[in-house]
Order: sequence, then C-alpha cells, then structure tokens
Amino acid sequence: MRATMMYGAGDVRVEQVPDSVVKLPTDALVRVTASCVCGSDLWPYSSMKPEDGPARMGHEFIGIVEDTGPEVTTLKRGDLVVAPFAISDNTCQFCREGLHTSCAHPQANFWDGEPDEGGQAEAVRVPLADGTLVKLPVEADSALMPSLLTLSDVFGTGHHAAVAGGVNPRTRVTVIGDGAVGLLAVLSAKRLGAEQIILMGRHQARIDLGREFGATDIVSARGEEGIAQVRELTGGHGTHVVLEAVGTMPAYRQALGVVRPGGVISRVGVPQYEDAPIGMGSLFRPNLRLAGGPAPVRAYIEELMPDILNGSIEPGKVFDATTDLDGVPAGYQDMADRKSLKVLIKP
Amino acid sequence: MRATMMYGAGDVRVEQVPDSVVKLPTDALVRVTASCVCGSDLWPYSSMKPEDGPARMGHEFIGIVEDTGPEVTTLKRGDLVVAPFAISDNTCQFCREGLHTSCAHPQANFWDGEPDEGGQAEAVRVPLADGTLVKLPVEADSALMPSLLTLSDVFGTGHHAAVAGGVNPRTRVTVIGDGAVGLLAVLSAKRLGAEQIILMGRHQARIDLGREFGATDIVSARGEEGIAQVRELTGGHGTHVVLEAVGTMPAYRQALGVVRPGGVISRVGVPQYEDAPIGMGSLFRPNLRLAGGPAPVRAYIEELMPDILNGSIEPGKVFDATTDLDGVPAGYQDMADRKSLKVLIKP
Repeated sequence: MRATMMYGAGDVRVEQVPDSVVKLPTDALVRVTASCVCGSDLWPYSSMKPEDGPARMGHEFIGIVEDTGPEVTTLKRGDLVVAPFAISDNTCQFCREGLHTSCAHPQANFWDGEPDEGGQAEAVRVPLADGTLVKLPVEADSALMPSLLTLSDVFGTGHHAAVAGGVNPRTRVTVIGDGAVGLLAVLSAKRLGAEQIILMGRHQARIDLGREFGATDIVSARGEEGIAQVRELTGGHGTHVVLEAVGTMPAYRQALGVVRPGGVISRVGVPQYEDAPIGMGSLFRPNLRLAGGPAPVRAYIEELMPDILNGSIEPGKVFDATTDLDGVPAGYQDMADRKSLKVLIKP
Repeated sequence: MRATMMYGAGDVRVEQVPDSVVKLPTDALVRVTASCVCGSDLWPYSSMKPEDGPARMGHEFIGIVEDTGPEVTTLKRGDLVVAPFAISDNTCQFCREGLHTSCAHPQANFWDGEPDEGGQAEAVRVPLADGTLVKLPVEADSALMPSLLTLSDVFGTGHHAAVAGGVNPRTRVTVIGDGAVGLLAVLSAKRLGAEQIILMGRHQARIDLGREFGATDIVSARGEEGIAQVRELTGGHGTHVVLEAVGTMPAYRQALGVVRPGGVISRVGVPQYEDAPIGMGSLFRPNLRLAGGPAPVRAYIEELMPDILNGSIEPGKVFDATTDLDGVPAGYQDMADRKSLKVLIKP
C-alpha cells in the first residue's frame, strides 16, 4: 500500500510500504476514504532533521472497516468510521472524564507515536478500535464528508479551546490565528453563544471564512498595535477569553496583551516554547488563567456530530483544496506557503 | 505616630512618622487595633536593597474608624473595621465580578503601593473607605479578633487558592507549603468539602495545625521523593488540584509533579520567577490548568465571616505569637527563622 512519509524539513514523499494488517485482537484495519494535512504537520515540515525521519504522517482520517481483531465487539467490516487523533480505550477513568488524550491504557497513543501507521495513507491499523473509532451514520460518498472529517481533530480542537476557555453567552472572545483551528475556534465560540468574537488574522480568504463562522470583529494588526485595537474594541480591558491557536511565543505574548483581568488564555496551538512568562508581570497579578492542551476530540464527537448532520454548521469549509495521495507533497508546500488553508486527501 | 519601616533586607525599624490624617473626601482614618506580619513581607526582608527603601510595612489590619472624609457614607467614627490588602471601590465592573484586586478606580491600590501608609502602625489613612473597609459586628476586644484579622489577607488568600482551583467534594487536593497561607488553604479546601487533602510540609507544629485544619495526609519529603509519595497516596496519578502557597520555582516544579492530568495548579504564593515551564513538557500535554493570583479578599469576607462568628472555624490559630510595635522587628526575624508561624501585632 502507499503512505506518506516525512524525511525531513520540506521533504515529504508518498511511498510503497508494507500493507497495514490487524496485529492485536483489539485492532481494526481501516481503508482510508478521506484524510488531511494538519497545521501541526507543518511544524516538522519546517524544522525536522533528517536523522529524526522518516516518519509516517497523518492523524486525521475517515475510512471503512476492512478487518477486525477477535476482541473488537462494536465494529464490523463495512462500517464507516472517523478516527480521533488520540488512540484511547474510552473506558479508563480519564476517558470517562472526557480526557481521552490522557487515556491510561498502555496502548493509548497519538498517531504521531505509532511509527508504522498514519492517516495520510491507503489504510491504517487502528489499535483499541472499540474505544478509538466512532461510527458515522452516512455513506462514504456523503457530501458531509469534509465536515465529518474535522471531527477527527481540527473542529474538536477548536471546540476544546472554547470549552477549556469557558466560553458562554456572557463572554467576549479573541481568537489568535486564522488557520483552520483558529477559524473553527471562531465557529465553536459562536456555537457556544459568545457575545463578541474578535478574530486576529490577516489573510483575506481566511478572514472572510472567519466572518462566515461568526467573527464579529477582525483585527489584522499584530504586536502592540493589534493589542491596542482589541482593547479599543472591548472598552479598554480586553476579552474574557483568548483562544490561542498558533503556538508561538509571539502568539502567547499577544494573548497576554488582549486578555481581560481575571480572564483565561486557552491554548490549543502546540507550544513551540517550553518556558514562558507566568509571573507577577504576566499571569499572576491580574489573576489570569491558562488552560488548554491537546483536544480530547473523542469526547466531543457525540456533541458536535448532530450539528453537522443537520446542516446547522459546516466546519468542512476549512478545506479549500483536495488531492489524491500523489498530490500530498505539494499539498504540504501549499499549506506552508499559505496558498491552501487545509488540504483534504482522497487516497 | 509610630509605624514600621523596612530599610533593607533584615533591617526593620519602628519609627516616629507624621500622623496619618484624612486627605481625600473618600478617606477614613483608622486607629489600628490589630495587625500582623505577612509571609509576603519576608520576601523583601530577605532581599530588599537599601536604595529601594525605606518602605512603610503592613497590609493586614483591623481598627476603629476615627475620622472620615465628607463623602464617606457607610462608616462613622467608632466603627470597628477590617481592611483587605487591596484598596478598591467595590462598585466597578471588576469589583462587581469579585475581582477587587483589579478594581478599575484610579485610587485602587495595594497597601504596598501606598508609600505613606501601612498596617503595622498606630493608624492608617484608608482611601476609598466605603469600598475598602468592612464593618465587624463585634467589639475590639473580642476573642475572635485573631480569626477576623485573617480576613484581611491570609484566610482570604487560602480560600482564593481553593476557589480558583475549583475545589469541591469530588476533588483531591495537594497543598504545597506549610506557612500560614498553606495551612489556611488546607482549612479552605476542607471547608469546601475536598475528598482528600495532602499537605506538603516539614515543620511539626505546622503539620499538627494542618491536620487540625483538615489535612488527611502529610508528605514531608521534597523534590522527586515528595512527588512519588503524593502519587502513591493518589493511585499513581496525583491530585486534581494543587494549591501552591510558596511562590518559588521548586514549589512550582513540585506542583507540576503532583498534579493529575487535566488538573489545576492554583497559585497564591507570590511568584519569585517570571518565566517557567508551561509547554509540551509541562502544562500542555496533560491539559493542566494554571490559576490564581493576588486574592480579592474583599469579595470573600461576607462568605467567610459567618463561619468565624459562629465558631465553626478558627483560622486565627495561625497566629502563634503576639507583640506590640516594639517587638515587630524581632517578629520579622522570628518568622524568617521559622520560629514563629505568624506574628500578631497589637500597636
């Protein structure tokens, strides 16, 4: 079968690899029907050293169950399923609390931690299939497929930002970052009723989609000027919640600049730093809170899917390009160049 | 009148200063009947440079109103009042939300920011008296005075740690630090019904008081060994909430070590650092949250005072020494030497 491999920064190849097969009794083999490139894939695409590769890529996919191990009880051949980016048993104490990204099962993992599997491929062996996979009540050729695919990561991640930030109808929200996660954080904040949603972004097509998703204000300036503009929009004090969907230190500093005293910075952009200001001069004095992390998207699928199925939201609009496996390397480059917002893959 | 001045590290003096008087129409003049030394006073006591002094000291006090400006409407001469450590108008949008430490009034301040006033003195000019001061329904010689004095800072701060950490009957809690704030964080967690309260501390008299306040377990080891012991007491995963009542980097690292995935580190110890780990290797991967800051104690007095008045709690037990103004310098030294837990001052 064919799969996407990253050999180093800027070096993505689609290659012939051994067929994925069921290995453990709790595995399922899934034939991928839709997958995509994640904004977080762009971090190694910009910085990965060749000695750290090659790495199998892709952690967001939908597919059809082709085989199951003898202990799989809830899935059968032919089921259409979506795979969250975290493998989990869905039964441990953390999963029961909705924190599937901290599943205590020894086989729990992120796809990035499975060296021989990845979603940007023809097929995937899915560990803990009963816990990880969620059945979709549509056919594989449904027009809803792009939106349903966002349940595997990017929409769940935007929703997680909003939930961890405590967004509700009484909150004003700033979203930092106009990538797919940022835009779906806008949609999520809107869905949770936020009073005001300020999107900080500068790419016209993305801003337009942000407005469509519910942004009430756009701030394109960065740094001190961007901070001043957000403060002007909020009576001088900033917003109760900041959804930080980038992960860089400038984005964190921007979050500190626009958050209201007593407010919360909810981070879902993978931090590209370890140490950052949290003392008297930043978080502590104004009682700011910090929240977020990798989204337990498995916990959110039941809540979010009905709104997709009934057409009230269309998170799949973040996909502005579609390719087959051959086009994946170019898709990475287009996303890195900001020519594409998010690339959908039909293997 | 006489007041306490700090001239530099280790150099506290009680000196004659100009009498405090009402200056602004919203001021009150309060004759201090009880005051104390705060754990946070020990930071400058260990490190203050002489060129930064002298500084008027003390931000926790109870006293009798002796004079009021013409715009003060809720207080009159003879009222017994407690002063929170933050001066606030109690009417702005932040005060109405219970965040008096971020009061938007131009005169809002901490006592430490008032160069000519301080609680470790015979009298204090209190700005924004209607907003700042809270009347006490007892006489100045009440036996409840030590406990009521804790409402000015130390009990409210322990309570804030527990509230910001979201302590409830389903939470297990670790308290880092056996100083007066840490011990009152134990009492606060107990009051909010915490299922388990692990106190990390090593001084026998403080541990004993911690147990009396509600600690269910004591861990005296520090660093990796202390972390391992907390994990052993909690099924391997750590506690949902960590109340960090010290403020040093080792205390923060200890908090990271004992907090459960998805849990919260609530800080009330004034951070002695600005940058600290919050990335993938610390807060982000396990979806840890960070909360806390200077406690808006004014917001908590109405809730906490009844439990003191009816005798169900006795936070004043943190005072293990009493002195007059002459004894204040020795009181600082005794607290720095850990000979005293907290020193009450009767001017």
